[in-house]
Amino acid sequence: MSDTALAAPRSTVHVALEGRGYDVEIGPGLIAGAGRLLVPLGARRVGVVTDENVARLHLDPLMASLEAGGLAASSTVVPAGEASKSFAVLEEVSNALLASKVERGDLVLALGGGVVGDLAGFAAAILRRGVRLVQMPTTLLAQVDSSVGGKTGINTRHGKNLIGAFHQPSLVLADADALSTLPLRDFRAGYAEVAKYGLINDAAFFRWLEDNWQEVFEGGPARTKAIAASCANKAGVVARDEFETGERALLNLGHTFGHALEAAVGYDDKRLVHGEGVAIGMALAFRFSAELGLVGADQADRVAAHLKAVGLPTRIQDVPGDLGDARRLLDLMGQDKKVKAGKLTFILARGVGQSFIANDVAPENVLSFLTSELSS
Amino acid sequence: MSDTALAAPRSTVHVALEGRGYDVEIGPGLIAGAGRLLVPLGARRVGVVTDENVARLHLDPLMASLEAGGLAASSTVVPAGEASKSFAVLEEVSNALLASKVERGDLVLALGGGVVGDLAGFAAAILRRGVRLVQMPTTLLAQVDSSVGGKTGINTRHGKNLIGAFHQPSLVLADADALSTLPLRDFRAGYAEVAKYGLINDAAFFRWLEDNWQEVFEGGPARTKAIAASCANKAGVVARDEFETGERALLNLGHTFGHALEAAVGYDDKRLVHGEGVAIGMALAFRFSAELGLVGADQADRVAAHLKAVGLPTRIQDVPGDLGDARRLLDLMGQDKKVKAGKLTFILARGVGQSFIANDVAPENVLSFLTSELSS
Ligand SMILES: NC(=O)c1ccc[n+]([C@@H]2O[C@H](COP(=O)([O-])OP(=O)(O)OC[C@H]3O[C@@H](n4cnc5c(N)ncnc54)[C@H](O)[C@@H]3O)[C@@H](O)[C@H]2O)c1
Ligand SMILES: NC(=O)c1ccc[n+]([C@@H]2O[C@H](COP(=O)([O-])OP(=O)(O)OC[C@H]3O[C@@H](n4cnc5c(N)ncnc54)[C@H](O)[C@@H]3O)[C@@H](O)[C@H]2O)c1
Repeated sequence: MSDTALAAPRSTVHVALEGRGYDVEIGPGLIAGAGRLLVPLGARRVGVVTDENVARLHLDPLMASLEAGGLAASSTVVPAGEASKSFAVLEEVSNALLASKVERGDLVLALGGGVVGDLAGFAAAILRRGVRLVQMPTTLLAQVDSSVGGKTGINTRHGKNLIGAFHQPSLVLADADALSTLPLRDFRAGYAEVAKYGLINDAAFFRWLEDNWQEVFEGGPARTKAIAASCANKAGVVARDEFETGERALLNLGHTFGHALEAAVGYDDKRLVHGEGVAIGMALAFRFSAELGLVGADQADRVAAHLKAVGLPTRIQDVPGDLGDARRLLDLMGQDKKVKAGKLTFILARGVGQSFIANDVAPENVLSFLTSELSS
Repeated sequence: MSDTALAAPRSTVHVALEGRGYDVEIGPGLIAGAGRLLVPLGARRVGVVTDENVARLHLDPLMASLEAGGLAASSTVVPAGEASKSFAVLEEVSNALLASKVERGDLVLALGGGVVGDLAGFAAAILRRGVRLVQMPTTLLAQVDSSVGGKTGINTRHGKNLIGAFHQPSLVLADADALSTLPLRDFRAGYAEVAKYGLINDAAFFRWLEDNWQEVFEGGPARTKAIAASCANKAGVVARDEFETGERALLNLGHTFGHALEAAVGYDDKRLVHGEGVAIGMALAFRFSAELGLVGADQADRVAAHLKAVGLPTRIQDVPGDLGDARRLLDLMGQDKKVKAGKLTFILARGVGQSFIANDVAPENVLSFLTSELSS
């Protein structure tokens, strides 16, 4: 229990969901302070799920804090990487939580990146038909995106996140210190999602990022500001459209292209991690919007230029190795969750901060766009 | 499409859930009429899940009816029996539904007993984070119990139904004709759940069953009446307490003992099927209530006598083979979902039709009761 750490300045973002609202706490020292912060939830046991990298770096202080807080804590460590979002690992985690007798009033705690959050969150959703979940995201991507909003799930050979549940956490603790151990590549990948919020509906935030991104990478107040602004943006969207029947789909900016690229590399995170797919996807979404005459080519160039400046990929060719042709990429989109009656749904843009949902994109248009991208 | 069949007399029970209410249709000819009955749901595709026994007997007319109704139907057949409620089979079913491109607006249709209903219902709950479900129960147990109320799930080595979701169906079609192919043993097992509704809160229904059970077994109006009365009773309980935070737990009468017995035989349905476990469990619950001085021994005898009259088991010793000692059975209850702070929850009774939830049963009392039962 670290009282000094908990006293440090924190930001709180509230996710306003009728009957299931919860707080996202952002700040330093939250891992060391977890034991105290969980007390109000009134659980007896906490089943921690994490991956081997995060376990090595952050598990011991968390377990010590939970035990000091009077909680019976057990932990399950899964292999790091996207491949853990599988039925096989879900079964292992479920059995481990059952073996440590996590009961209905208890908690599952996801300590890690989006992989651990999605996997452990789904395990919590289906354990005894649902137990409460605490998200402790340790990657930038997880802090600004996956830990907030309740989407959980695993992958199958048919595509990413095709099996899952909506299961809102009871609390999110985003320890800003934890990002200091994150490899640069993963920090960058998370930054793609930060930039996304600007591109969707906040031109001023995107402008601010263009001016301040170096500070965000270095840490300190600018980083905290970027995380809190991102969480607040996501919390607003989720509160207005929890089950993605409308506006929430905007958060998929860059994701339809991105998912196809991830599928094309067989979810091999050596070649492409999720945030990199999103970065390329966002650049493609703006270029595709330009090709459809929705936005000026200069705006598409501006988006790509910023992503490139921070070191993110922006073209399909930036992914190492062969991805197949345009037809293959289109087919990989066809199995995406967002298919309706043969038309594809894309998030397109009329400008920076002016994204919208297009439900009626013809596959032929995507095909010719991808063909020209691949040969450019 | 069988217009004559659909014209036959049907009972409709409505499950009144805010925003997610649905009908349970009970009557003959519903399999042959399914294609027409599903039209109002407005789906394009139906992913049928069934087991090998039911497929042999009832799948062809269903598929013909769906296709005649203009629906694109695919089917997945799982092995019959409790062992199909596993992660492995769940994964197979999920992949089969994805392969046949069941999308968000489409339907999963569970054609079979409680095993298929629980498995396919759970698959529907987690496919693309939830697609709609139609239950077409073909066992008496599934018609009067498992198809109504939205509990879905699978088993693990730690116990039955420990992994799952609440996922209400959009429609339940209980084809009374389909029970004509059901083996007597399975009909009897379902009858245990019918009797349960009387024992919980409807003494008049239990009295009516004592007088009319032979007619219920034979078929005709008495059987339809028994199914509809059971569904109406369950629908009421579910509408008042969807997520089992209170009254719904009454439906577990006989189940805490029953689950322990099922676990003790390793879910080997040659030795014990679910309804038989419930029958023994209800007899035990009444005898345990008598031992605790809550009800007269004559009432416990009356319950056992009726169950025995219809051919159901009422004693632990009625299960073939070794089950272990009282301590083992108690331990198998300890892993049950209903554990709270070391105390066990049982449904006990002050009389026929007067069951109640006891949250504070001491494990020692259960142990000594089981010990005396095993040596009686
Ligand atoms: N649920 C949602 O709403 C949502 C939204 C976006 C993305 N996602 C999912 O998130 C996943 C990607 O998440 P991710 O990018 O966090 O990947 P990740 O969880 O695989 O983490 C990336 C790497 O960083 C390591 N790591 C994590 N925290 C660390 C730390 N503090 N220090 C050092 N190393 C650390 C991990 O072990 C891993 O090797 C994808 O599966 C994606 O589908 C989900
Ligand atoms: N979800 C709930 O609320 C709930 C409630 C009670 C029980 N259950 C579950 O239900 C399951 C037991 O259901 P069940 O007793 O229906 O078992 P089941 O599904 O295994 O069916 C029993 C047998 O009858 C066969 N069968 C089914 N319909 C037939 C027909 N019309 N003609 C001939 N054979 C047929 C099946 O192939 C199987 O061999 C258990 O897993 C139990 O946990 C769930």
